[in-house]
Amino acid sequence: MRLYTIKLRETEYVAVQREDRLYRLCDMGLGFKDMNELICAGEKALKKVREFDGYENILSIALQKPHICSPIENPLQDILCIGVNYDDHIKETADLESFQNNKATVYFSKRANFISGAADNIPDYDYVKKLDYEVELAVIINRDLRNYRRGRDADPVFGYSVFNDVSARDLQFRHGQWFMGKSLDGYSIMGPCIVTPDEVGDVQSLDVECRVNGEVRQHSNTSVMITPVYDAIEELSSLMTLRAGTVIATGTPGGVAMGMKEPVYLKKGDVVECEIEKLGKIVNTVG
Amino acid sequence: MRLYTIKLRETEYVAVQREDRLYRLCDMGLGFKDMNELICAGEKALKKVREFDGYENILSIALQKPHICSPIENPLQDILCIGVNYDDHIKETADLESFQNNKATVYFSKRANFISGAADNIPDYDYVKKLDYEVELAVIINRDLRNYRRGRDADPVFGYSVFNDVSARDLQFRHGQWFMGKSLDGYSIMGPCIVTPDEVGDVQSLDVECRVNGEVRQHSNTSVMITPVYDAIEELSSLMTLRAGTVIATGTPGGVAMGMKEPVYLKKGDVVECEIEKLGKIVNTVG
Repeated sequence: MRLYTIKLRETEYVAVQREDRLYRLCDMGLGFKDMNELICAGEKALKKVREFDGYENILSIALQKPHICSPIENPLQDILCIGVNYDDHIKETADLESFQNNKATVYFSKRANFISGAADNIPDYDYVKKLDYEVELAVIINRDLRNYRRGRDADPVFGYSVFNDVSARDLQFRHGQWFMGKSLDGYSIMGPCIVTPDEVGDVQSLDVECRVNGEVRQHSNTSVMITPVYDAIEELSSLMTLRAGTVIATGTPGGVAMGMKEPVYLKKGDVVECEIEKLGKIVNTVG
Repeated sequence: MRLYTIKLRETEYVAVQREDRLYRLCDMGLGFKDMNELICAGEKALKKVREFDGYENILSIALQKPHICSPIENPLQDILCIGVNYDDHIKETADLESFQNNKATVYFSKRANFISGAADNIPDYDYVKKLDYEVELAVIINRDLRNYRRGRDADPVFGYSVFNDVSARDLQFRHGQWFMGKSLDGYSIMGPCIVTPDEVGDVQSLDVECRVNGEVRQHSNTSVMITPVYDAIEELSSLMTLRAGTVIATGTPGGVAMGMKEPVYLKKGDVVECEIEKLGKIVNTVG
């Protein structure tokens, strides 16, 4: 399933895609206020959506950008992030020597008061001089999770989405830890939808790409992730409880502006496209 | 005012201290489910509590540890933290050379699925070998805040509390960014109550102390903070929206175990007391 949050006449709805149309869950008799409620309702609720068969009798809505919000606009907690999780991105962050020698996975977080969607702009703050993009696979957790173990426990993934971990490199390094440069309002973008695991198949074989004004800047595949999705979930949940609805941004491949010999940071008017195979793309303009 | 969250027969209540007794807000006709609701209700709600005058007609409750939870058990977002914000703590983290040369304030965050209170234990995880304490002044924000400016805008502080930023030093450095070593379940402790600014007076002149098994390990005063409370609020809110209920942990003085020549980390059975002048103390046992 491909699950969306859409806005019609200032009201938001959770919707599911069927062929090239969207259908609201409320029209199926499923009254979820937002995606978080659907996630927290668990597998039973998802099954009802999956098994709904009255599509011909309910309103269908065009799959068009103006309707489409981030699938999760108000995350229940900050975004969990994995740092330097693609080999080529480690190489380009060569000034960060300690990270190259680090054998353990780097975890940090990113405040997201609000997650922007496919139709929103990337804010162009005058106090940010080094604005950068980071295409990432986002993983959404389906239940409260502690000490998850593959093979033993049910799948903990609600679905996947495309995430742009927008970063102000100047603030990221000025303030000692990465948190601040990544936590500015509007610096979390996710969309266009959440795709459930059954429709994704092998999550470690997806092409990941970011283009700026049409030029390919990042191009990789989730197969070369250093800490794959389920390893990260095992480790994170071995250390702390992951709540239902947790969003994990799993790191970005090489090709960010910061990594260039002469960095070409984002500027007003730039169009940033982040795309992941099977998940879709988000296209956002700076300014 | 001194505001508490207390638990009576498995139900939690917001309460206010008057002399040596506690009084529930629900008995005053103020039906706030928890402290976050009281904060979000704004100054008007607080005024009602302040002006209540029927104490002789309502239930009074003993000010005893077993009742007392963390004033905010479920923070609306992760805790915002200031790093190395006391001069002597910078010196003892001498291996962190970059922080000594850093002129900007260090900000990071700490996941808190749940904030422990004055009566809870500090968990003793077998995978943590370097368990450390950090007494800190916690600041709670009273409204959604963007671009706050002193002198121009109303006071943004709902109140102050004592915070123990429990840290697993091994995980803090193994995972590249500080986030993980500080985000384990049970590693945020706050209490015993929230004290409103009018009762605190000058927040930059409070003694701060941490004792382990009665031995003074940290002793300082908020007067030597590098980035004082209101400077931090101005800077943070200039970069991102702070939501009502945001908890900011403002950094710890020197004296943590990590800073000792031969670090004496916490072990099972250790009793950690964090105390701040005018705010009270939290006493928690490891294990």
